[in-house]
Amino acid sequence: MHPQTLERLRHVSTATLCTALFKRGLRHQFIQDVRPLNPNLPNMVGPAFTLRYMPAREDLNPITVFEDRGHPQRKAVETCPPGAVMVIDSRKDARAASAGGILVSRLMKRGAAGIVTDGGLRDSPEIAKLPFPAYHQRPSAPTNLTLHQAIDIDVPIGCGDTPVFPGDIVVGDAEGVVVIPAAIADAIAEEAEGMTTFEDFVQEKVMEGRSILGLYPPTDAATREEFAAWRAARGR
Amino acid sequence: MHPQTLERLRHVSTATLCTALFKRGLRHQFIQDVRPLNPNLPNMVGPAFTLRYMPAREDLNPITVFEDRGHPQRKAVETCPPGAVMVIDSRKDARAASAGGILVSRLMKRGAAGIVTDGGLRDSPEIAKLPFPAYHQRPSAPTNLTLHQAIDIDVPIGCGDTPVFPGDIVVGDAEGVVVIPAAIADAIAEEAEGMTTFEDFVQEKVMEGRSILGLYPPTDAATREEFAAWRAARGR
Amino acid sequence: MHPQTLERLRHVSTATLCTALFKRGLRHQFIQDVRPLNPNLPNMVGPAFTLRYMPAREDLNPITVFEDRGHPQRKAVETCPPGAVMVIDSRKDARAASAGGILVSRLMKRGAAGIVTDGGLRDSPEIAKLPFPAYHQRPSAPTNLTLHQAIDIDVPIGCGDTPVFPGDIVVGDAEGVVVIPAAIADAIAEEAEGMTTFEDFVQEKVMEGRSILGLYPPTDAATREEFAAWRAARGR
Amino acid sequence: MHPQTLERLRHVSTATLCTALFKRGLRHQFIQDVRPLNPNLPNMVGPAFTLRYMPAREDLNPITVFEDRGHPQRKAVETCPPGAVMVIDSRKDARAASAGGILVSRLMKRGAAGIVTDGGLRDSPEIAKLPFPAYHQRPSAPTNLTLHQAIDIDVPIGCGDTPVFPGDIVVGDAEGVVVIPAAIADAIAEEAEGMTTFEDFVQEKVMEGRSILGLYPPTDAATREEFAAWRAARGR
Amino acid sequence: MHPQTLERLRHVSTATLCTALFKRGLRHQFIQDVRPLNPNLPNMVGPAFTLRYMPAREDLNPITVFEDRGHPQRKAVETCPPGAVMVIDSRKDARAASAGGILVSRLMKRGAAGIVTDGGLRDSPEIAKLPFPAYHQRPSAPTNLTLHQAIDIDVPIGCGDTPVFPGDIVVGDAEGVVVIPAAIADAIAEEAEGMTTFEDFVQEKVMEGRSILGLYPPTDAATREEFAAWRAARGR
Amino acid sequence: MHPQTLERLRHVSTATLCTALFKRGLRHQFIQDVRPLNPNLPNMVGPAFTLRYMPAREDLNPITVFEDRGHPQRKAVETCPPGAVMVIDSRKDARAASAGGILVSRLMKRGAAGIVTDGGLRDSPEIAKLPFPAYHQRPSAPTNLTLHQAIDIDVPIGCGDTPVFPGDIVVGDAEGVVVIPAAIADAIAEEAEGMTTFEDFVQEKVMEGRSILGLYPPTDAATREEFAAWRAARGR
Repeated sequence: MHPQTLERLRHVSTATLCTALFKRGLRHQFIQDVRPLNPNLPNMVGPAFTLRYMPAREDLNPITVFEDRGHPQRKAVETCPPGAVMVIDSRKDARAASAGGILVSRLMKRGAAGIVTDGGLRDSPEIAKLPFPAYHQRPSAPTNLTLHQAIDIDVPIGCGDTPVFPGDIVVGDAEGVVVIPAAIADAIAEEAEGMTTFEDFVQEKVMEGRSILGLYPPTDAATREEFAAWRAARGR
Repeated sequence: MHPQTLERLRHVSTATLCTALFKRGLRHQFIQDVRPLNPNLPNMVGPAFTLRYMPAREDLNPITVFEDRGHPQRKAVETCPPGAVMVIDSRKDARAASAGGILVSRLMKRGAAGIVTDGGLRDSPEIAKLPFPAYHQRPSAPTNLTLHQAIDIDVPIGCGDTPVFPGDIVVGDAEGVVVIPAAIADAIAEEAEGMTTFEDFVQEKVMEGRSILGLYPPTDAATREEFAAWRAARGR
Repeated sequence: MHPQTLERLRHVSTATLCTALFKRGLRHQFIQDVRPLNPNLPNMVGPAFTLRYMPAREDLNPITVFEDRGHPQRKAVETCPPGAVMVIDSRKDARAASAGGILVSRLMKRGAAGIVTDGGLRDSPEIAKLPFPAYHQRPSAPTNLTLHQAIDIDVPIGCGDTPVFPGDIVVGDAEGVVVIPAAIADAIAEEAEGMTTFEDFVQEKVMEGRSILGLYPPTDAATREEFAAWRAARGR
Repeated sequence: MHPQTLERLRHVSTATLCTALFKRGLRHQFIQDVRPLNPNLPNMVGPAFTLRYMPAREDLNPITVFEDRGHPQRKAVETCPPGAVMVIDSRKDARAASAGGILVSRLMKRGAAGIVTDGGLRDSPEIAKLPFPAYHQRPSAPTNLTLHQAIDIDVPIGCGDTPVFPGDIVVGDAEGVVVIPAAIADAIAEEAEGMTTFEDFVQEKVMEGRSILGLYPPTDAATREEFAAWRAARGR
Repeated sequence: MHPQTLERLRHVSTATLCTALFKRGLRHQFIQDVRPLNPNLPNMVGPAFTLRYMPAREDLNPITVFEDRGHPQRKAVETCPPGAVMVIDSRKDARAASAGGILVSRLMKRGAAGIVTDGGLRDSPEIAKLPFPAYHQRPSAPTNLTLHQAIDIDVPIGCGDTPVFPGDIVVGDAEGVVVIPAAIADAIAEEAEGMTTFEDFVQEKVMEGRSILGLYPPTDAATREEFAAWRAARGR
Repeated sequence: MHPQTLERLRHVSTATLCTALFKRGLRHQFIQDVRPLNPNLPNMVGPAFTLRYMPAREDLNPITVFEDRGHPQRKAVETCPPGAVMVIDSRKDARAASAGGILVSRLMKRGAAGIVTDGGLRDSPEIAKLPFPAYHQRPSAPTNLTLHQAIDIDVPIGCGDTPVFPGDIVVGDAEGVVVIPAAIADAIAEEAEGMTTFEDFVQEKVMEGRSILGLYPPTDAATREEFAAWRAARGR
């Protein structure tokens, strides 16, 4: 990975990234129906470390299972690499929690970059106060044992109808979460940085009262020249 | 339209308007499942200017389509009359965006009164900071080309299961959005203004500890007299 | 009921309560898909006083029905005991309101502990400003007559897929609402209080950088001793 | 009730009945999303006898509850009047059964006119072979105790978003089930009988190649005369 | 259009057509969640003639609207060209009917090739007996006026999340309905015919006990030779 | 496994099995929302052989992927053991197919006992004619590459909200599919056989006109004696 890729991704939006991915034919990389618990943090950026849940079978999921140090959920929390984003496949089922405040706190302390589930998080009011990006569908107080059983660590999964492979680069902002295939992360980051510069220019012009026709996209040659000058003046 | 109708609608709630419409047999005028991005603004009020989306066919929706100045989405933004509310029929599909920050900014600068979609908006964190009413189902980063194709401007549409005809009066508050048929806008505005006065009286009495029986509705003659005096004292 | 039960429940989370209930085999006590209008209030705690809605038949639900002082919705508001939580079975249908600002204000003034519906509330921006716990699925401006008819007071109901019997103890926090069967409220409250003490200890240790293995659950004897000391030092 | 009402309803379709109800402002009388297990039977016709289910609480619903002869589900089966249609409010939840083959057989032997649930039936292949009208959402093998608890007999309920009052006249055909308020059953039956005669005439003409314009509805005077003659010739 | 295109499409499956469309990057051409009322008919094939519905507003949709000969629904039935498939955008809402037996019969007599709605049809048991292809989501007895208002004829629409342009070629079999863009209908028909020949060969071999490896797809040269011989022997 | 277990399971219903599982606290073993394509076959019985799908990423799923003999979908079909039931986790997404006629035919020829997906099958009309049990949510013509990527073979999965472990015993009848944990298959089969005998007795008595009170469950001692005699007379 290019040394600036992660830093670049900290300064672009998930909307811009989705457009860059769309240009390459990737239409399902935005995780559907998740939202940030703390929307005021900087972008979450990091490689995906995945956790797969299956439906819980009652006899296999008494409260005592967590006494096993090898339980996949607990093991995942203790092995998620610093800088990584834990992404949980909860089968879009928020009727029981995917994780709670203590585990999310531990992830944060271990240096993870964030957590995403297409289910729900419990202790959500406490998680919302942590300086740690967390995304879910909706708050869900019931323990995960109620409906979920952690079964696999760091395998390819689905999350919110998005394919997620371990190592894919995950970016979250106040709008949501996008997953960038690892192999194109450098190219997408670079392209998105350029697109962001142009969008900033366009937004400035629009706020000055300019029409979008010829400006966005810049079909007028004059626009393209103006943008070149704008860019040069700002060193971007 | 009565010269005071729009002003009256700025000071009544969507809840009160729904009741006035219910009394006339109209039960589907509240746009289902949309919420304001900026709930702290004054009421959004204006005639509907509509935009219809259909499902996107991939070969017709490459990123280059926006180079066409006549593309219906861009054309709609540049022709929406000042004072109007753009209402988009996105078939309740928020998996891709209906519009983004630059177009919403342009609409605002052109003097539109607001924007409503039963899908999602992208760049939603930026839109939420604009002094411009915007309503959607949920944030959605993917470009509209992913799933939506703009196909018709200012035709009758559905939005959140509500029928919307061009020129209907659209009112939004922190609760949601209601659509008033143009032909009865004057009558509804006047009735809602009166109802609001009564509800303010009732709320005041309830907060003083009064029972709702006989008060709301005012089946007690004493209540009606008290209200008349209250109203007179306040010049409403 | 134990004299301290309600007070204990004011200081534990719905997440902790769900785990205590799960240990007893109760997996459906968290009301699904409701959220607080005012998440900054202390816990809502009180016995359930229920109201059952059925689908509205148009001829039975003109606006004039509320002139009947015996209408179940109005009667429920005027008979809900002080300290009780009104829980409404709205069949998870938020397309029309379950109640509005005036009735909720009246409930508050009468001393109720809160209101919960698996449908929607109207006048939600005003309700959100009251110092009164209210939970719903989403804002809904249309009068309840549009789709709901109040039919029964204080009978067993479902709310958000949860069974609710009159007198069950209802607890709400910023995460959501849990329903505790009356017969085990004392035991659950006591257990949850103890669990909360332990979770506070764990959270403190996790924030100090401790691994969850051996700590949560406390399979290490050393952890249990440390907790005993921690607890003693704090008098909890 | 008029002595011919039930017989008339045996010979009209639910589609025609819905139109007759629509003319009176009743728009929600068709039970949504239920289908017949045996679509080849004559119309099901009879007064509603209702059964209300709430979500099951695990501790109250062990397999042994059916040993109680007063259990509402069993009691309902043994007290449903001959000629009545049992209508079950299963909260549209088909994840567990509303009833099974043995209870449905017993209902049939006791002379009931049919059974309807907005949930599912178990033993559905066997029920489909009985000469007894049964309607549900989809087959569902799990015992009702899994998710449902019978709680009330012969109270007003919702079924498939339709209001159902005890004594309402329930009619089912191969298309679905419609609920006619008791007070207007005579009028609706008579009107529907007349409409059916006219629709038979129209269908005959359409199959002969006639345009629907002027025919359906019969805005042409000639059509109305032709129909009068057709009707007279057939003695309908 | 190639003179054999429609005939070719009568002998290929919607599954094969979907694969041919997928190869060209078209992934949304199968109308979601519709099924045939009469699955035993030959393929339905014809150009799309579209009808767009919007949500019904009560005051505009009394039963008397059909007295207007220009009502779009009635007009559509009387102007749908022989050979065409009427495709109705019912916004996936089957709570009220899109059309009924008399209109479908008239369409059949006028020579239409079939009818498709992403909502429901009423008089479905009668329609199921006609020698006429009809597809819907589920039976729905309520008149369309209850929830639908016909508003546009032969404009681009969505149907079951599929984009449908007037003139697109619509093909239905017992599995469902696929929409082929007019411009590629010839190519798709020819390709699908060839694919069908190969699939028939493969199916024969599989039923003889052959492994699919090397056979499907035919990565083995021997398979390709065998198929060439098989094809030659059968003159396909 | 007991030598008679599979044979016993061929003669009991999924409804009876669900009750036996419920008695052991297992409430989620019936696969939700799947139905048989050919409901007239004998019971499907066999150990689960699983296949896990994740959402398809477009660049990884061109039509050419099937040229790889090691593609998990094709490999699964060629390695599924004779007698096993292939159970596919399609994330309940039927918008694209899980498999088609040729693969299902190959599975049948290789001696598999059946196939189950919580998504859809393509070529469903052909599959419905095979003497091979197949269960799905609904027909779906689009190739699986459109939305699904096969990723894992014979790992624990979810299917229709049911946990499925490789080797669990899967039983399907005309009602649906139930999954029995391997460790209790013998006990469940034996218990279900006994329950079936009793239910046959009860059904016979009910059809003779007997009340269910005291009979079902057999709380009357006389019933239990009568059943013992009935059973002895039939040698069951």
